[in-house]
Amino acid sequence: MWRDLARIGRHPGTGGYRRYAWTAADADCRAWFAEQARHRGLGYEADRNGNQWAWLGDPAAGDAVVTGSHLDSVPDGGAFDGPLGVVSAFAALDELRARGARPRRPLAVVNFGDEEGARFGLSCVGSRLTAGQLAPDAARGLRDADGVTLARAMERAGHDPEAIGPDPERLARIGAFVELHIEQGRNLALHGTPRGSGSGPGRSGGRAAAGTPVGVASAIWPHGRWRFDFHGEANHAGTTALADRRDPMLTYASTVLAAREQARLTGALATFGKVTVEPGGVNAIASLVRGWLDSRAPDEPALATVVSAVERAAAESGERDGVGVRVTRESFTPVVEFEHALRDDLAKMLGGAPVLPTGAGHDAGILSGAVPAAMMFVRNPTGVSHSPAEQAAEDDCLAGVTALADVLEGMACH
Amino acid sequence: MWRDLARIGRHPGTGGYRRYAWTAADADCRAWFAEQARHRGLGYEADRNGNQWAWLGDPAAGDAVVTGSHLDSVPDGGAFDGPLGVVSAFAALDELRARGARPRRPLAVVNFGDEEGARFGLSCVGSRLTAGQLAPDAARGLRDADGVTLARAMERAGHDPEAIGPDPERLARIGAFVELHIEQGRNLALHGTPRGSGSGPGRSGGRAAAGTPVGVASAIWPHGRWRFDFHGEANHAGTTALADRRDPMLTYASTVLAAREQARLTGALATFGKVTVEPGGVNAIASLVRGWLDSRAPDEPALATVVSAVERAAAESGERDGVGVRVTRESFTPVVEFEHALRDDLAKMLGGAPVLPTGAGHDAGILSGAVPAAMMFVRNPTGVSHSPAEQAAEDDCLAGVTALADVLEGMACH
Repeated sequence: MWRDLARIGRHPGTGGYRRYAWTAADADCRAWFAEQARHRGLGYEADRNGNQWAWLGDPAAGDAVVTGSHLDSVPDGGAFDGPLGVVSAFAALDELRARGARPRRPLAVVNFGDEEGARFGLSCVGSRLTAGQLAPDAARGLRDADGVTLARAMERAGHDPEAIGPDPERLARIGAFVELHIEQGRNLALHGTPRGSGSGPGRSGGRAAAGTPVGVASAIWPHGRWRFDFHGEANHAGTTALADRRDPMLTYASTVLAAREQARLTGALATFGKVTVEPGGVNAIASLVRGWLDSRAPDEPALATVVSAVERAAAESGERDGVGVRVTRESFTPVVEFEHALRDDLAKMLGGAPVLPTGAGHDAGILSGAVPAAMMFVRNPTGVSHSPAEQAAEDDCLAGVTALADVLEGMACH
Repeated sequence: MWRDLARIGRHPGTGGYRRYAWTAADADCRAWFAEQARHRGLGYEADRNGNQWAWLGDPAAGDAVVTGSHLDSVPDGGAFDGPLGVVSAFAALDELRARGARPRRPLAVVNFGDEEGARFGLSCVGSRLTAGQLAPDAARGLRDADGVTLARAMERAGHDPEAIGPDPERLARIGAFVELHIEQGRNLALHGTPRGSGSGPGRSGGRAAAGTPVGVASAIWPHGRWRFDFHGEANHAGTTALADRRDPMLTYASTVLAAREQARLTGALATFGKVTVEPGGVNAIASLVRGWLDSRAPDEPALATVVSAVERAAAESGERDGVGVRVTRESFTPVVEFEHALRDDLAKMLGGAPVLPTGAGHDAGILSGAVPAAMMFVRNPTGVSHSPAEQAAEDDCLAGVTALADVLEGMACH
């Protein structure tokens, strides 16, 4: 099962995955999903928003326990982010069957479409549409780097873009959604071990064992993206006296360092991972530098503290450099607290698994507004994700399948 | 004359010029040049390297006084950088005729091809080829951003790429080359006024008058480009603890600020005007940041001091950030001292015009290795160049024409 999927959309040069929504690689992933459902005799359906479902039991019976994740990837992503949750879901159903468990509630495996947003710039499009958190017109108008709209991309892939939109009937059938995901960090790997300074989600816990293969999510940190536009003056790099310059690259550089410092002081995260420069010539002082700040924090006041401190630092550096600074919030996602009862049930069913927050958005976070949702994490020895170097030990993946089977059995079969 | 040229290759959105070598805009500029020559009854020729010449008198007589500059532009360049020198050359010939001056030496106006290197990345291709400073095969293999070779671009524009190469016979006819250029800086504008701190070429002088319209070049500062590769580790910006990061954007930012500081300390210039990021996602810590350092200084030891100090600062920041730093020198141009006798003659003919260095490369700098060469600068009130905001007052342009006519008359007619 894993081997067939592992071939799809892998770039031979980087070893990373390039499975973008509504591309050929995405279609191959979808065909793989449909085949897994067919092979197990599960009821297969693709919904109006391009999400795929494989049903064990009657969907119309209601109160279903749904598990799964996504199959698409970021550019040159790893093998586990997304697929581990879908593969583990099918494997957990196999495990239940092997145990002879008899579900009292319908079970389903789901593959949410376009989770990473790598092509159209917005994450979790499939679950957002379903939950009514994204207007169909806004979705249809999203464009990829080549200017192709999401509507056109869906059409080319054989999906009707006019069909997309909220799907309350489908959500009403779901009693609970549990998403298993590789951890994007080293909290499970370091669980119970003392740790030096530095900050990141899920630093608490304090259990005795050194590392543990499976954990349960408490919350998704609030997060957002802010675009910083630094406006200076284009000029010749070889002839303009330092005193005559209005160089926005200097202000950008100061802001990058300020963001790191403010994140450290607040116990938050702040990252500049994308920057563009105009005119961008080696011998030209830039006229405009645009940098994107990604910031996340344990709670919304902390996030606001970090971002406003970075804005203040940028404005002060801009003053020094003769550079104008404009900040635009491009997106913001409030904190997601997973339902406490479900979360505690999961931790108990898993023998007291550690409960930890995450800084990353997920379909489970989107759905949590509409149905009880929970997440389980599988240990990531290096913490690396969104990279070909993303890793999980085979034993830990199997432990994840067993844990997920335990959870499904506990929720649906007793 | 100026009006016809001003229309060519101007971008309606930015107001800047986009006259790149061997494009349609370049062909229009060349047609304009040929028409100016024809209109005045000058002998016209385009040489093997794509430079254009308009002769008053017999080229074969030797010891010619040549003046001119270039017509191509940087991306969204100004109206004056290049064209002012060509237009002023034709206007100075008109002025000599009006004065009834009778040249004893042949005079020529030249338009050197591909001076800015905006399309193929190497500056002064026309003059370098002519002076034997660029191998024909290397030139033919240069590629633009679309992968088109210079050879192919020449072919498409009707120029035989097999013809290019050193042209010693043409150089042997030239007794002196004088290039008039807009100043790329405010030294003439500030000439004689006290000035605050900061550094830049041509800060000396110390005459009494406040500003002066025309000056003479002493030297071109040594300059070069260094590519800094900062290698970190791609990771998820929302989940990776600060302590677990190897973020090359931090090292880049520290290096940008260090470059500015080192330039200030050394009285040099240092600029990062171009940067690229991989993977360049908003929510991804970068794996690789590449920044290009342009640095220039009054002499080569000062330049070496600045660059090695920046390299050291980058390595130290890289150590702190867990980021590997590799530095590659992509180009280097030694100091060019214009011939002292010619330079002093010009200053005298212009009534003691100020003599000042420049940080920018020019065709006159390339030719100075082969023939006596000199440069004249016209005042730039804001100092801005390589930008649509580049400016020169009409009176100063006319003063430049008069000064150039004085120089041509002084050199060729007495």
